[in-house]
Amino acid sequence: MITGLLQFEPEFGNPKSNTEKILSLLEPVEFDLIVLPELANSGYLFTSFDELENSSEVISGSNFVNALTEVAAKKNGFIVTGLCEKSDDKYFNSSLLITPSGKIHTYRKIHLFDTEKKWFTPGSDSPAVYEIEGSFGKVSIGMMICFDWFFPETARTLALQGAQIICHPSNLVLSYCQRAMFARAVENRVFTVTANRTGTEDRGGNRLEFTGQSVMVSPKGQYLIEAGKNDEVVMTVEIDPLLALDKHVTGSNNIFEDRRKELYKL
Amino acid sequence: MITGLLQFEPEFGNPKSNTEKILSLLEPVEFDLIVLPELANSGYLFTSFDELENSSEVISGSNFVNALTEVAAKKNGFIVTGLCEKSDDKYFNSSLLITPSGKIHTYRKIHLFDTEKKWFTPGSDSPAVYEIEGSFGKVSIGMMICFDWFFPETARTLALQGAQIICHPSNLVLSYCQRAMFARAVENRVFTVTANRTGTEDRGGNRLEFTGQSVMVSPKGQYLIEAGKNDEVVMTVEIDPLLALDKHVTGSNNIFEDRRKELYKL
Repeated sequence: MITGLLQFEPEFGNPKSNTEKILSLLEPVEFDLIVLPELANSGYLFTSFDELENSSEVISGSNFVNALTEVAAKKNGFIVTGLCEKSDDKYFNSSLLITPSGKIHTYRKIHLFDTEKKWFTPGSDSPAVYEIEGSFGKVSIGMMICFDWFFPETARTLALQGAQIICHPSNLVLSYCQRAMFARAVENRVFTVTANRTGTEDRGGNRLEFTGQSVMVSPKGQYLIEAGKNDEVVMTVEIDPLLALDKHVTGSNNIFEDRRKELYKL
Repeated sequence: MITGLLQFEPEFGNPKSNTEKILSLLEPVEFDLIVLPELANSGYLFTSFDELENSSEVISGSNFVNALTEVAAKKNGFIVTGLCEKSDDKYFNSSLLITPSGKIHTYRKIHLFDTEKKWFTPGSDSPAVYEIEGSFGKVSIGMMICFDWFFPETARTLALQGAQIICHPSNLVLSYCQRAMFARAVENRVFTVTANRTGTEDRGGNRLEFTGQSVMVSPKGQYLIEAGKNDEVVMTVEIDPLLALDKHVTGSNNIFEDRRKELYKL
């Protein structure tokens, strides 16, 4: 299964230019599953609800989503992308799973980071797992967004529901995540795909430097993909997602069966 | 608060020699809290219940425990040590917290690794947190043992109960833990002290190489102590345990208050 990520620098408040850049980066690439950064249509550092309104999109009718849906169909591949979503006069920091047949599954970020709390409504649904099917067979995938990684419960919730690949659109500014995804992958024996953005935003008196260095990690903690700090790039790797179904670390230790749920205080 | 770890190579089946080596390593050292490896009295690779019986100790009356209790009193410091424990004709892979006044708190490993399942009864109590007090003030500490680290729920259970320092006696043979403790420390904003053993055991057709490289990590993921692969050594560092009470990663993000417990499926 050809799986990977797209790392780029979105232009703030310009969904049209961001769509074009993504399409052009994806154009030469074959993939079964590709993960894009958080808020890939909009950029990050809002300074007003007007800006948020201008950059957010209702999924049905969104030019950004429609364009990606066409790519998914043409490439016969699945796309996970961050989206600045509008719905019922609320704004969500969302991740979409877009299938080649045009179906769309939505996850709304449940752990909002810093000023996101000002703009977005937190998701009210548990992270869920979706089965995708293609020439690669049937594979269960889950989505979480950026800061969700900080809470081990997020990836755990996905893995315990059977996720083999955790898709992780991100706009990372702290320095922890890429390094910590080692633990997320290993402790759940899953593949993780962290698609980060690059570049700097300097708006309304705030300045954020995004850390790039997107990573994909195997269930045994191998870094399969490591992008550069500033590269705008698509990187893919051929994986066997069945590896993520084997939860044995030793012949006697299945890390899910070994859990002592009754003793945890969570 | 002077906190640290002791790394050494226990001699299999020789509690007396192990006690002496520990005493001699601790002799020149000042500490408020020191963590010793898992099964520090006994060694690891049992091949029969006779061997286990010969190396295990009932806490009350144990020469090993008595010797460490004397050191704790003399040094006016707290000692956490792994112990091959016998109790009611059962054997436990335990960790003890020994106070300067001679009080002993016991934690029994709840996630047994590989062949440990053959020899030991798994603990039936949740990992608990203890308040220790000294010239350093009052500090809450928790204990987990070796493979417990693999389950994010263990450290989380301790941190949510207020542990500022997670003491982690270990006999590590896999290559993951030292690297993953970065995530355990950061995701819980606690200090972690992983005291590993060194050396090789080759017994009954099995050969295990222990990985040394004990680590102490700060709540922000700084590696405060990194021991060598084979060193028999005590390493300490002065820390401010109050840092572990601050669960804010940003002004708007308290990582405990931000948890979405109602959405996790654990």
